[in-house]
Amino acid sequence: MSRVTARRRVLRIRDGAASQRPDTLAAEEPMEIRLDGRPLTVTMRTPGSDFDLAAGFLLSEGVVRQSADIAAIRYCAGATGDGGNTYNVVDVALAPGVAVPDQSLERNFYTTSSCGLCGKASLDAVRTTAPWTVAEDPLHVEPETLTALPDRLRTAQRVFARTGGLHAAGLFTADGELLCLREDVGRHNAVDKVIGHSLRSGWLPLRGTILLVSGRASFELVQKAVMAGIPMLAAVSAPSSLAVELAEDRGLTLVGFLRGTSMNVYTRADRVQFDLPVVGGSTVSRHAAVTPEEVPASA
Amino acid sequence: MSRVTARRRVLRIRDGAASQRPDTLAAEEPMEIRLDGRPLTVTMRTPGSDFDLAAGFLLSEGVVRQSADIAAIRYCAGATGDGGNTYNVVDVALAPGVAVPDQSLERNFYTTSSCGLCGKASLDAVRTTAPWTVAEDPLHVEPETLTALPDRLRTAQRVFARTGGLHAAGLFTADGELLCLREDVGRHNAVDKVIGHSLRSGWLPLRGTILLVSGRASFELVQKAVMAGIPMLAAVSAPSSLAVELAEDRGLTLVGFLRGTSMNVYTRADRVQFDLPVVGGSTVSRHAAVTPEEVPASA
Repeated sequence: MSRVTARRRVLRIRDGAASQRPDTLAAEEPMEIRLDGRPLTVTMRTPGSDFDLAAGFLLSEGVVRQSADIAAIRYCAGATGDGGNTYNVVDVALAPGVAVPDQSLERNFYTTSSCGLCGKASLDAVRTTAPWTVAEDPLHVEPETLTALPDRLRTAQRVFARTGGLHAAGLFTADGELLCLREDVGRHNAVDKVIGHSLRSGWLPLRGTILLVSGRASFELVQKAVMAGIPMLAAVSAPSSLAVELAEDRGLTLVGFLRGTSMNVYTRADRVQFDLPVVGGSTVSRHAAVTPEEVPASA
Repeated sequence: MSRVTARRRVLRIRDGAASQRPDTLAAEEPMEIRLDGRPLTVTMRTPGSDFDLAAGFLLSEGVVRQSADIAAIRYCAGATGDGGNTYNVVDVALAPGVAVPDQSLERNFYTTSSCGLCGKASLDAVRTTAPWTVAEDPLHVEPETLTALPDRLRTAQRVFARTGGLHAAGLFTADGELLCLREDVGRHNAVDKVIGHSLRSGWLPLRGTILLVSGRASFELVQKAVMAGIPMLAAVSAPSSLAVELAEDRGLTLVGFLRGTSMNVYTRADRVQFDLPVVGGSTVSRHAAVTPEEVPASA
């Protein structure tokens, strides 16, 4: 039996009429990540690609940087009182010489800066932790290639089609070829699974690639892209202010509201509109002139 | 200047034409919650209702149960190196006699059961921690009242209208009256702000109310509803398997895919279809007969 989905009977009400019918749900289970046997964190995730998830989480948090930093990943036997295996506890053995963090990773990541807890400190933390630089990545993507990606992602989503309940993250080439797709009830987990798979495949840094997510673009999703060396993050919905700030700080191209034939490019638009001269410090379209009303005086 | 939103210049591409224009983003900043001066957790949130967020988080995690359990909440001065205040660090002083948890809350909550880390252990943890019982709540809601709620929530969302980037959580009466609305880049935060506001207002347990969320219904959102004594959680999108299991275990009514004139009722459908006899252990419609094809033999 698949643990990725679960079946339920549900009462469906529509226009005042009701019927009972079976429904398929996306599975959710807790997973604990251990580091050399020591409990590190617990996340609620959709079972599947658990080793990718563990590897991607450790990459995102700056604990590992490449495939060789991980000696082994395994499910912990004896995770239950009777010695059984829930397949919900994953232990990562680090390679010799890789430092084990000695405190809560979450707190460490946000507060390594001495300037106090704020957005700027969060940017500083990523800057000092990121093993790669994405600012010089020469990635160039046609707008038409980008607008085709959401449909491609949705078509490839197998579990979502059955449950309507999963976030997706997809890694694409500049030509729009899908390299890796992962689904999860948590969008952070979907991204961790994609970059964890990439790390374990020896693909890092992921130069010249585009990461597409089905929801919004938060600070943490930009952080994960930066930690994997991905130069472009595209989201179907809105980015947050801090996501844009981090993308600008690191030289990552951030695309939001990628829907139909349109998108907003928040940072490093030269990777999308690359064949035009830069006027007044801003990239303009090859197709349409920028009218004065569209450029705010304060910008 | 409002910290809830931020302004950015953005390159808008549509149908191959581009223009530059100003855009409004939902703000995202880290916030640290301290308990009696000791750092407890960091969450990325939209600034605003920070004390509600801290109170709701502590209620969700079982640290506090009522308004009187909190002696004071304040922003920490001196959170930056130069003694300034980032308004991103909130300290909660517990009332005398309220026990301070001595480890990572997240890990505690999921692993208080001795049976190992699994979905069942997560259900057990909520069962032993929840201060209220929602199973006996006599809440009755008309389907027409429920289907009107998403529009009401969206209309009341002020920040979303400007940014398109915020999750919302709304607390309603059985008649569809909005009691409290909160928005945040994180949907867990939006719910914590609603129940934190309710706790600080002395409203707990929230008997007879409906909590509506703009996204999916995860295990943790059901957990938060249970911890606040809310008998019904409605979501615009899909629930997860463990969300349904927890709702069933605790006797909470879980509604998903609440869109237009339709919805799926996953548990305790008697609170929605309450004026009909229960046949074969299942509630059936007053409007439509259940046809054999719609009832799976295995159900």
